[in-house]
Amino acid sequence: MEFSYSPRCQDYLDRLRAFMDAYIYPNESTYAEQLAGFGQNRWQVIPIIEELKEKAKAADLWNLFLPESDKGAGLSNLDYAPLAEEMGRVPWSSEVFNCAAPDTGNMEVLARYGSPEHQKEWMEPLLAGKIRSAFLMTEPDVASSDATNIQCRIERDGDEYVINGRKWWSSGAGDPRCKIYILMGKTDPEAERHVQQSMILVPAETPGITVKRHLPVFGYDDAPHGHMEVELKDVRVPASNILLGEGRGFEIAQGRLGPGRIHHCMRTIGAAERALELMIKRGMSRVAFGKRVADQSVWHHRIARARIDIESARLLTLKAAWMMDTVGNKVAQKEIAMIKVAAPRVALQVIDDAIQIFGGAGVSADTPLASAYAGIRTLRLADGPDEVHERAIARLEMKRLSNEA
Amino acid sequence: MEFSYSPRCQDYLDRLRAFMDAYIYPNESTYAEQLAGFGQNRWQVIPIIEELKEKAKAADLWNLFLPESDKGAGLSNLDYAPLAEEMGRVPWSSEVFNCAAPDTGNMEVLARYGSPEHQKEWMEPLLAGKIRSAFLMTEPDVASSDATNIQCRIERDGDEYVINGRKWWSSGAGDPRCKIYILMGKTDPEAERHVQQSMILVPAETPGITVKRHLPVFGYDDAPHGHMEVELKDVRVPASNILLGEGRGFEIAQGRLGPGRIHHCMRTIGAAERALELMIKRGMSRVAFGKRVADQSVWHHRIARARIDIESARLLTLKAAWMMDTVGNKVAQKEIAMIKVAAPRVALQVIDDAIQIFGGAGVSADTPLASAYAGIRTLRLADGPDEVHERAIARLEMKRLSNEA
Amino acid sequence: MEFSYSPRCQDYLDRLRAFMDAYIYPNESTYAEQLAGFGQNRWQVIPIIEELKEKAKAADLWNLFLPESDKGAGLSNLDYAPLAEEMGRVPWSSEVFNCAAPDTGNMEVLARYGSPEHQKEWMEPLLAGKIRSAFLMTEPDVASSDATNIQCRIERDGDEYVINGRKWWSSGAGDPRCKIYILMGKTDPEAERHVQQSMILVPAETPGITVKRHLPVFGYDDAPHGHMEVELKDVRVPASNILLGEGRGFEIAQGRLGPGRIHHCMRTIGAAERALELMIKRGMSRVAFGKRVADQSVWHHRIARARIDIESARLLTLKAAWMMDTVGNKVAQKEIAMIKVAAPRVALQVIDDAIQIFGGAGVSADTPLASAYAGIRTLRLADGPDEVHERAIARLEMKRLSNEA
Amino acid sequence: MEFSYSPRCQDYLDRLRAFMDAYIYPNESTYAEQLAGFGQNRWQVIPIIEELKEKAKAADLWNLFLPESDKGAGLSNLDYAPLAEEMGRVPWSSEVFNCAAPDTGNMEVLARYGSPEHQKEWMEPLLAGKIRSAFLMTEPDVASSDATNIQCRIERDGDEYVINGRKWWSSGAGDPRCKIYILMGKTDPEAERHVQQSMILVPAETPGITVKRHLPVFGYDDAPHGHMEVELKDVRVPASNILLGEGRGFEIAQGRLGPGRIHHCMRTIGAAERALELMIKRGMSRVAFGKRVADQSVWHHRIARARIDIESARLLTLKAAWMMDTVGNKVAQKEIAMIKVAAPRVALQVIDDAIQIFGGAGVSADTPLASAYAGIRTLRLADGPDEVHERAIARLEMKRLSNEA
Repeated sequence: MEFSYSPRCQDYLDRLRAFMDAYIYPNESTYAEQLAGFGQNRWQVIPIIEELKEKAKAADLWNLFLPESDKGAGLSNLDYAPLAEEMGRVPWSSEVFNCAAPDTGNMEVLARYGSPEHQKEWMEPLLAGKIRSAFLMTEPDVASSDATNIQCRIERDGDEYVINGRKWWSSGAGDPRCKIYILMGKTDPEAERHVQQSMILVPAETPGITVKRHLPVFGYDDAPHGHMEVELKDVRVPASNILLGEGRGFEIAQGRLGPGRIHHCMRTIGAAERALELMIKRGMSRVAFGKRVADQSVWHHRIARARIDIESARLLTLKAAWMMDTVGNKVAQKEIAMIKVAAPRVALQVIDDAIQIFGGAGVSADTPLASAYAGIRTLRLADGPDEVHERAIARLEMKRLSNEA
Repeated sequence: MEFSYSPRCQDYLDRLRAFMDAYIYPNESTYAEQLAGFGQNRWQVIPIIEELKEKAKAADLWNLFLPESDKGAGLSNLDYAPLAEEMGRVPWSSEVFNCAAPDTGNMEVLARYGSPEHQKEWMEPLLAGKIRSAFLMTEPDVASSDATNIQCRIERDGDEYVINGRKWWSSGAGDPRCKIYILMGKTDPEAERHVQQSMILVPAETPGITVKRHLPVFGYDDAPHGHMEVELKDVRVPASNILLGEGRGFEIAQGRLGPGRIHHCMRTIGAAERALELMIKRGMSRVAFGKRVADQSVWHHRIARARIDIESARLLTLKAAWMMDTVGNKVAQKEIAMIKVAAPRVALQVIDDAIQIFGGAGVSADTPLASAYAGIRTLRLADGPDEVHERAIARLEMKRLSNEA
Repeated sequence: MEFSYSPRCQDYLDRLRAFMDAYIYPNESTYAEQLAGFGQNRWQVIPIIEELKEKAKAADLWNLFLPESDKGAGLSNLDYAPLAEEMGRVPWSSEVFNCAAPDTGNMEVLARYGSPEHQKEWMEPLLAGKIRSAFLMTEPDVASSDATNIQCRIERDGDEYVINGRKWWSSGAGDPRCKIYILMGKTDPEAERHVQQSMILVPAETPGITVKRHLPVFGYDDAPHGHMEVELKDVRVPASNILLGEGRGFEIAQGRLGPGRIHHCMRTIGAAERALELMIKRGMSRVAFGKRVADQSVWHHRIARARIDIESARLLTLKAAWMMDTVGNKVAQKEIAMIKVAAPRVALQVIDDAIQIFGGAGVSADTPLASAYAGIRTLRLADGPDEVHERAIARLEMKRLSNEA
Repeated sequence: MEFSYSPRCQDYLDRLRAFMDAYIYPNESTYAEQLAGFGQNRWQVIPIIEELKEKAKAADLWNLFLPESDKGAGLSNLDYAPLAEEMGRVPWSSEVFNCAAPDTGNMEVLARYGSPEHQKEWMEPLLAGKIRSAFLMTEPDVASSDATNIQCRIERDGDEYVINGRKWWSSGAGDPRCKIYILMGKTDPEAERHVQQSMILVPAETPGITVKRHLPVFGYDDAPHGHMEVELKDVRVPASNILLGEGRGFEIAQGRLGPGRIHHCMRTIGAAERALELMIKRGMSRVAFGKRVADQSVWHHRIARARIDIESARLLTLKAAWMMDTVGNKVAQKEIAMIKVAAPRVALQVIDDAIQIFGGAGVSADTPLASAYAGIRTLRLADGPDEVHERAIARLEMKRLSNEA
């Protein structure tokens, strides 16, 4: 066992940190101001993002996420993880490096399962950062944690598929650059559970698509990205838009999930790490009852707990990434479920403590804390609520002990 | 000991519940729609509120909060508490009954400490629901939990006082009807700790006042009420605007605090109670893994914990109210500090569990949960963070045991 | 609503406290020494107990627990509860006042359901403190939380019943004065669920009874009381020993439960209150890093939490007692389940914190803390584990909301 | 970064597990019975231990703990850690492999700081498993977390040192084979804080030594090992018994601490892992309300949490071991403090959940759970309470951020 980062990872990390110091942190207020400057018309491209994307390309910090591919940096999940953590310190920074969800997952799907035509039409501009994408999976009114509950229909009609359904929490669909959706729906509701679903490419401007509204998260609209509710009514796309073929949707979803969870978890850990830093610095700068706040033992307790929990969650996530790299998503499914539960739990506690030490500034926009809390709170629900993953972990544990016996 | 509500309290409660059923719950969407209809110009009076205020007056559900006064219903703190709980189920409903903070505390201050002229000019229209008010206490950059940290200056200059300072979290100052501020500042920074401060009436439209910005809570602006940052620059008011006299600010603040805490805590309990109801109903209406969610034991655990914690917090708050009524704020200070810590702790846990059972709907505006969470999270900070109250409780406990020995 | 103790309760409480101060606390070491002095032969009567019983009788502090009865003090559950709390501060003290489990529950059963002969033979000497008793309910190998799982058989054979079975956690059966068991078993395994069981009186010295071993709780044997495993092999008792009649066991068990839970919970709260006092006093007497431990904010937090939680649990328990007195056990079942879960949860946290502040002394016999922890930990399991009560609470909540709808 | 165990570690682990399966688990009841068979005279060598020690030597599973030494297996801390975890599953098993505290720490001290004479006289028989030892550090009446509080005096008198003091929690001093104490005391109370203390070898049978009593842990005497209170009255030893020289005690203590903490933490994790296995197996074997307990979602939650927390604590501890191996104790001090807090916290929660699922059997001696709980609870106090380590972690974090700035 060996706990140091690989030289390759460390090199990227050093360069990424230098970039963050030079361009990201100094522009946090710029980002906020440009967005605020839009007034009510918030669903626009924020100029600073496009500016910084060019700098990131120039710094060779572009498309870092793609493992086993000549399209990106070719980093393993384990080597990419610390970079995702770093980006997690400023939520919008991932996009600067073209490493933002859901594009990352969508590009992976296209790289692995797309036809050369799909790749040329959609993956290339995505890799180039020219367009963005959305993933239409979750539906209102059903427990989406169980893929068999999906109601959206994809029906063959000659050379086309006709799509009817309603999706929500389609993140990124609010962005004017969002040109392509990967949609999960049912091609055969009568088939065996795991082959009812298919994935299909749906250009965002296809007739019949209506973005009904955005869903706020604790009052945040997350513009211009957004979490949208999308209605699809007799939406027609060429039959060739299907990915892999009918009934392969579940299989693709499984393949898509693993890396995304590593990314989310590491970004979450980055957010927690930043909250801890803010907490400590605030505690060192304020005096209460004649003593620096950070010197009071209740804050010793919280700082220590935060340090322990963050480091634990980081190691757990790195181990899951390592397993994905060495034994694959399937064998690593327990570890992936574990970090899905652990990372948000840890981060929410740390951020909540940080909010507490900041007082009013903590809940407002004067710190990044409340916004981070809200965003990470959704991770206990997205891609299956905690309860589903805890069930999966428990069942794998039972299976392990049954096999041993 | 006797645990039933007094007949008087029960009568008000029955009538209040009937009113909530008839007019408040059915208008929750109206309120949201009217506010949304304002577009970006959100700092306006919401029509449904004004409409319902007339109905509440007609129903003799008006100014219920004022204890020991011929101006209001004359209910004791203990008898009013269950009514505050009921109103807490819908955050904006308190205003309908003219029972909303900070007006309630401000009216109490005027009733107890205002001159007949103050009462005529400001208390009467407040009691009539014609104007609203703000309380300017907290300041950025200092730990406001310690009143001696206050920086705002109130200086005598002939027949006037001249005020200079910066306040924030001035709740309600965003409302166009907000006509009067009660401001805490220092008249004599050299005096003994507890007589440095004074309170003074400052009409909202006095020259030199600038409302700089609103402070969001998580992503909510809480319009049209709002939490404002207010700058006061050479603001001049007549010397007669001072309340009680120079150096009495701390004394007035102490008197103001107790009832407000009961109100806040009971409203918080009402919000928790509603979250629990929503949680249970959701759990009974959804099926996962072949079983109603509410029938799964992890939800048994959470529902039971919620029921226990809510009932405990309610009894604790009612006891604090009873002590205020019978032995006064000063003797009840430990009990008041206890509920200040306990009620938000309980409510945040219950609401968070409710969010969890709702999934995406829980964090969005499709349920009142995320907004309630954000609002109640501020109660762990407002009027002193948890840590200050825990310190006070611990010190009172130590004192008690030292006296015994 | 009214939160002061009744004059009658307060009078008993004052006298009880005076007795505790005069005779119980000063003899805590005597008790420990007399028990230690027995060497390995620990299942003997501890002399100081018998001595103090006479003083308690003389002080009119005897049989305080029996509500609605001319046999005891005739206190309501609500009036008795604070006395139980007081006794809970020293675990063995209840026996001094003839208020110790399981005798209290057994005497109640005999008073309510026993024949005049049963009362004369067993209840009279129990009320006089001349003998002790045990309650044989729980069985190894089955989930006893579900009474239908009971395996012990009670079979009619002419004028006798023949009993076969194995019981454990028969508390008090280790005491040489323990002369009578109330045993729960099945008379008709084929009957409807709730009428399969019966209760029967079994004299401890009946042939066929073997006390197999004592069950330690953590490392405590709780001698001379003890928690015993008892084997019953063809044990014959007169048919008249059956209580109420065949099939009435479940009904009797229900009647027995309520008051016992109030007693246990209030004693638990008393133990928590004492732990808090010890914690604070220790914290005031020790210095670490140049400051009294009790003045460090992490202990402010723990002391405040303890005070809040204890007071909450006390009010909750008193309300349950009041409901039992006013609307009866059945209507109060939710409240009784709530305190069963809440009181041990609170007490274990407080005691654990107290252990922490004491360091090594906390886990050893130099404080009463570790022993209290162990004893109260069993209350999360005895008479149904937390999970069973949480389920009951959740189901009652669901029922309430279903009825409302 | 690389997460697999080294081939060397894996080989030892395989052989150790085989030994545990063949000889340790099958003799758990033997151990209990032999101890019980002693009756009241419990401070005796348990025969099965001595028997198994021969088998362990034969299996080349002996003295595995000594890093960088030709005396033991020469395993690094990282390679030894998984072996310590394995032994932690059965508390007494470490001794079978001559890997039990406090002998391990004492042998390390002798190996590093002892003179050739010390090594010959005491280290050799310890390495051979012929004698045992104790470490006399903690004192009653003072906060031992601060070494400067130590009261025990070591005074030079000609060719001898004279020792006076009182120690407690001297673990292992109850064992009849315990022949040597390493004692910490003050040679110069006037010197600078960190050079006041010295360590000295004190043969257990030196006149003036009285073992006053054993200290129970939650009712357990932990015989024949025991935690003793030892009085030293004018105890005289040769001047050559001092280790390294006067004033070097603190330095030696620091060197001793690191590896011991890894051992304790890994054994703690082993105990937690075993508790989790027992919990799951119990849950799979019991039915409640028509469903296997392990299939109920509240147990999914607890099993998943346990799995996450154990794996996290394990990785954290392995990283601390790796740091000790690569950058040394001093640089690793934060990581060592972190596991000191984390491992017991995790294990106590897991064991408590396991107790809950077992009901009465969980708190009794029918499972190893209650005893493990008690033993591990002391780890939150021994070698400094949590609060001291949390303070150290927080201060190191503050220092890190101050340096960065």
